[in-house]
Amino acid sequence: MSENIHPIFDRLVKRSEREVFLNQKASVFWFTGLSGSGKSTIAEGVERRLLELGYLAQVLDGDNIRKGINNNLSFSIEDRKENIRRIAEISKLYVNSGIITLCSFISPTLKIRSLAKNIVGENDFHEIYINTPLAICEKRDVKGLYKKARSGEITGFTGIDSPYEAPLNPQLELKTENLAIDQGVDKVVQYIIETVRI
Amino acid sequence: MSENIHPIFDRLVKRSEREVFLNQKASVFWFTGLSGSGKSTIAEGVERRLLELGYLAQVLDGDNIRKGINNNLSFSIEDRKENIRRIAEISKLYVNSGIITLCSFISPTLKIRSLAKNIVGENDFHEIYINTPLAICEKRDVKGLYKKARSGEITGFTGIDSPYEAPLNPQLELKTENLAIDQGVDKVVQYIIETVRI
Repeated sequence: MSENIHPIFDRLVKRSEREVFLNQKASVFWFTGLSGSGKSTIAEGVERRLLELGYLAQVLDGDNIRKGINNNLSFSIEDRKENIRRIAEISKLYVNSGIITLCSFISPTLKIRSLAKNIVGENDFHEIYINTPLAICEKRDVKGLYKKARSGEITGFTGIDSPYEAPLNPQLELKTENLAIDQGVDKVVQYIIETVRI
Repeated sequence: MSENIHPIFDRLVKRSEREVFLNQKASVFWFTGLSGSGKSTIAEGVERRLLELGYLAQVLDGDNIRKGINNNLSFSIEDRKENIRRIAEISKLYVNSGIITLCSFISPTLKIRSLAKNIVGENDFHEIYINTPLAICEKRDVKGLYKKARSGEITGFTGIDSPYEAPLNPQLELKTENLAIDQGVDKVVQYIIETVRI
C-alpha cells in the first residue's frame, strides 16, 4: 500500500462537519431526578419530538446502558461511579458524532454529576432537574422499588436510605407536580432547540 | 404530572425510524488486521467518503476508545476481552442510533471477534480483513511498537510474541500490498454502500 497518503486522509471528520451535515449543534442534556420522577418518560418524549422537528437525538438510560455495556457493574459505590463515568464517555463519543444526547440517570450526588460534567466538558453539559417530590414518586412506584426499599429488601435506594442531592444551579428545572408530561416535554424541547439550532 | 401518558410516548424511537431519517441502513463494519496494517487509515478515509456521499458514519478506534471509556483497561488478556466487549456494546448503541459504525481494532483472535459479533448481532456485523503482511507492517512501524516488541520492551505484541488469527470467512478482504489507500477505501465504500443503501 502506498505510503503517499492523499491529503484528504490527513484529517479525521470533525464534529463540526457532522453538525453541518445534521444541521444541528450537538450537546449533552443530562436529566437527573429520583427514581419514578419521570426522567426517562420525558427524555423519550423529547427524543421523538426532536426527530419530528428534524433533529437527531439519542436517549441513553438504564434500559440501553445497564443491560448492555454496564451489565458487569453492581450497585456498589465504586461501580455506580464507574457506571456514570462510562455513560459520560459514551455521551462524549455521541456528541463528537454530532448527536443530541439525552442522558436519563438518577445520578444522585453533586459529585457524581460533576464527574460526568468534567468528562463531557462544561460547554456541552446541560443539567435538567426533574423535580418530583419523593411522596409522588413513591406513590407511583412503577417498578415496585420503593416498596422493596421500605421493606429493606433492597438497600442504598436513593431517597429512602441513600441521599439525593438536588442540583444547585441546573440549566433547566421542571417541577412536575402540576405539569402534564407533554408540557414538560415542550419546555425541554424549547430549551434544547435554543441550544442546538444552527 | 398526569399519569395519562399520551400514546406517542408509549413507544421509543425505533432504529428503523432513525434509518429513514438518515436515509441509510445502519450496520457495523469491523476492520481487523495487524498493527500498522492500515486499518484506521482506511476506516478514516471511508468515514470521510461516506459523509461526502451523504451517509453518516463513525469510526471507533484506539484513539477515541482507549483514551476515553477504556482508559481504565490494561493489555492483560482479561482486559483485552473487556476492551472488545465494551466496543461491541457501544457499536450496538450506535447501530440502534442508525449510524454506520466503523470499528478499527486489531482484535487478533477468532474468539474475540466472535464475542464482538455475538454482542452486535450477526446480521449487523461485517468483518473486513485488512491483510497486510507482517514484514510490511514491521517495516513501516509508524508507532515504533514493533521495534519495542522485538527488543522485548513490550510483550504480548500481536504478530511478534502473540498470535494473529486471520478471519476464516470475512465479508471483505483487502490485500493491501499492491493496493493504494484510495483504492482500498473505494473497495470498502462500495461494499458498505451495497449494505446500507435504502
